[in-house]
Amino acid sequence: MAELSAESGMPVATIKYYLREGLLHPGERTSPNQARYGDEHLQRLKLVRALLDVGGLSVATVGGVLAAIDAGAPTNEVLGVTQRALVGGTADGDDEARAWALDLLKNLADAHDWKFVPEHPAAPGLVATLCTLRALGHPALLDAIEDYATLADRIAEVDLDTLAAAPSLDRIVEAAVVGTVLGDRLFAGLRRLAQGAESRRRYPDGLR
Amino acid sequence: MAELSAESGMPVATIKYYLREGLLHPGERTSPNQARYGDEHLQRLKLVRALLDVGGLSVATVGGVLAAIDAGAPTNEVLGVTQRALVGGTADGDDEARAWALDLLKNLADAHDWKFVPEHPAAPGLVATLCTLRALGHPALLDAIEDYATLADRIAEVDLDTLAAAPSLDRIVEAAVVGTVLGDRLFAGLRRLAQGAESRRRYPDGLR
Repeated sequence: MAELSAESGMPVATIKYYLREGLLHPGERTSPNQARYGDEHLQRLKLVRALLDVGGLSVATVGGVLAAIDAGAPTNEVLGVTQRALVGGTADGDDEARAWALDLLKNLADAHDWKFVPEHPAAPGLVATLCTLRALGHPALLDAIEDYATLADRIAEVDLDTLAAAPSLDRIVEAAVVGTVLGDRLFAGLRRLAQGAESRRRYPDGLR
Repeated sequence: MAELSAESGMPVATIKYYLREGLLHPGERTSPNQARYGDEHLQRLKLVRALLDVGGLSVATVGGVLAAIDAGAPTNEVLGVTQRALVGGTADGDDEARAWALDLLKNLADAHDWKFVPEHPAAPGLVATLCTLRALGHPALLDAIEDYATLADRIAEVDLDTLAAAPSLDRIVEAAVVGTVLGDRLFAGLRRLAQGAESRRRYPDGLR
């Protein structure tokens, strides 16, 4: 364990905590107070760290995602667990607003050949966001949803290309989890840089 | 205040809390225990609610964003405050990894005519995400960064179009804050739907 700590840069106490919480598989016991840890432990430690720290997931959520991976659950299911943890935002608004948002999403999904049902893990977050945008009275963002959906199709192609490059099914599933958790964050950051550049092009003297 | 509560659907206690925290301007006092609240209070309440609940910001962060808006700060500055609150992810990794990530971002920014400096509010989140992706050994996501950057340029154009539609400077600034906080969430949800569709197209029998 001292070696695993040195390799990963994580304190022994942290590693013990992950073991207790079931986020890390036990090492192969070689004596009463010694265990052997391999590369798969190091890789798993890095994944746990990424989901907790950079992904901002809770220990319980990470446990659920890893359990789904370890159970050999189909990719769709592992991603469903991850997505439910990430989408956030509780559906707000009255029944009329919720019905309007669900209807809008249904039509958008039909036009893009997506599958959308109210039980989709992304549904609560999308419904909450749409209801909030409408309540705040920013119709322009809503009017642009067709453009955003078209770009979402383009980005999903790139996302799936990155998965196809993973060398094994295990790694595909891990890549899908990592891509879902970190891909949004990566793209949000790039979007900030691109927005700044576009803003400077349109308003070279600043906006005030 | 009872009317404001009825109009907004928020409890009087919540409105009083926002007043104490400075998130809501005091109403115009009409008698020792009466004040008049107008449409601008209702709109502000909705904005506070959106930033807190759907945006997931803290009360202190929302206070900072609103103070920047109220001070008539330039849009760039208001957005800077919002972005610093949102990007998340503390820069991880050793100095070599950080230098690699900053270099990658600098080259990407040059190619896309973006402005990138390590002090950019989006920088810590991007550096942390890139270092984590590299440490996890998922090079495909990193290899796709040029494709993601190109799509970020496309989405920034749509983002700025939605701002231009706002009827007044006040509303442009508010739209920019709302767009930054909720736009990422909206796009992440659409990306999930598009990923599911693309995954079904490529793997009609499921991935397992």
